[in-house]
Amino acid sequence: MRLISTYPNCSAPSAPSEIPASGGYPGRFRRDPFTPGKDLLVINPIWLIQIYKNVTLVRYMADDVGILVLGHGSTKPYNKEMVEKCAKMIGDLHEGPVRIAFLNMDEPNIAAGLESFSGTGVKRIVALPIFLAHGVHTLEDIPTELSVDPTHRRGKCQLNGTEVEIRCAEPLGVDESIAALAYRRASEALK
Amino acid sequence: MRLISTYPNCSAPSAPSEIPASGGYPGRFRRDPFTPGKDLLVINPIWLIQIYKNVTLVRYMADDVGILVLGHGSTKPYNKEMVEKCAKMIGDLHEGPVRIAFLNMDEPNIAAGLESFSGTGVKRIVALPIFLAHGVHTLEDIPTELSVDPTHRRGKCQLNGTEVEIRCAEPLGVDESIAALAYRRASEALK
Repeated sequence: MRLISTYPNCSAPSAPSEIPASGGYPGRFRRDPFTPGKDLLVINPIWLIQIYKNVTLVRYMADDVGILVLGHGSTKPYNKEMVEKCAKMIGDLHEGPVRIAFLNMDEPNIAAGLESFSGTGVKRIVALPIFLAHGVHTLEDIPTELSVDPTHRRGKCQLNGTEVEIRCAEPLGVDESIAALAYRRASEALK
Repeated sequence: MRLISTYPNCSAPSAPSEIPASGGYPGRFRRDPFTPGKDLLVINPIWLIQIYKNVTLVRYMADDVGILVLGHGSTKPYNKEMVEKCAKMIGDLHEGPVRIAFLNMDEPNIAAGLESFSGTGVKRIVALPIFLAHGVHTLEDIPTELSVDPTHRRGKCQLNGTEVEIRCAEPLGVDESIAALAYRRASEALK
């Protein structure tokens, strides 16, 4: 099996070294015209789009920005575990401080999560909900608990006697990466 | 600004043509040693890992597999919209039929969602929850509504007088792509 990318010069990390530059459909096996009886596997170009999107955003995230990763909370341990691990991965991407908080059940709550940035010297805090879609939690509960205007989704708080700006990020929402991860989970269920 | 990938020969779609093969931290600006005063932006290698993961899974997803994309449902329209758009993207990746269903509030319900595969000739259906983490819904409610054994997460149903296998996929869970998408949302909130 050989790999084809719809963009030239891109290959998976362990791909064979021979990568013909050619068009193709995303995520499909195709008959290899050069090697009878062999299949080609065409790489899904959405991952290349994802690289591009991420490359364009890094400039906004300075080390004086704190990220407050917000989970729903649950009586079962799964939500908290997922949010904690996600926050750790976000911490690997971000130079500033990353903290977590939960709306319900799990600790710390949002007020304690904000307070946990004390002493870090952050000038801005982004409240980042690990929620799939907007709903009452993201539109009303989170802004209310952060004392943030729910329309403009921006506000201020005091930390160590200094004014810190708060901004509410959007939920994960519609994105190719969610669809592709879900599709991967479907594939794993068939193994 | 130039782009560096930690894997040689990989670039974003619109990247400059000159891509030096070099190591680096994910998602960081670094001083360009070749061009004084210019920054390098190091591409996050998790996107290349994502490409690799997706390349390895496609073989399991034949056109006789149906995917039932499951949403939580809500009194507000956001969850249904998100699930519908995600299902459409999954349909772009998958050769077989893709349908949707919801646990609460929104239509169709899970029984109607299963029935909607009638006439498609699918031999297997993957129930794919668009949920972030396991909880009562994924561990109990979905298997119960599908009449699937909750431990092995596999079962059977009758469609057009033919036995069809059902498998329950895992929720999205912990994955670098969720963390990276969340980080992108944080960055967008600062623009």
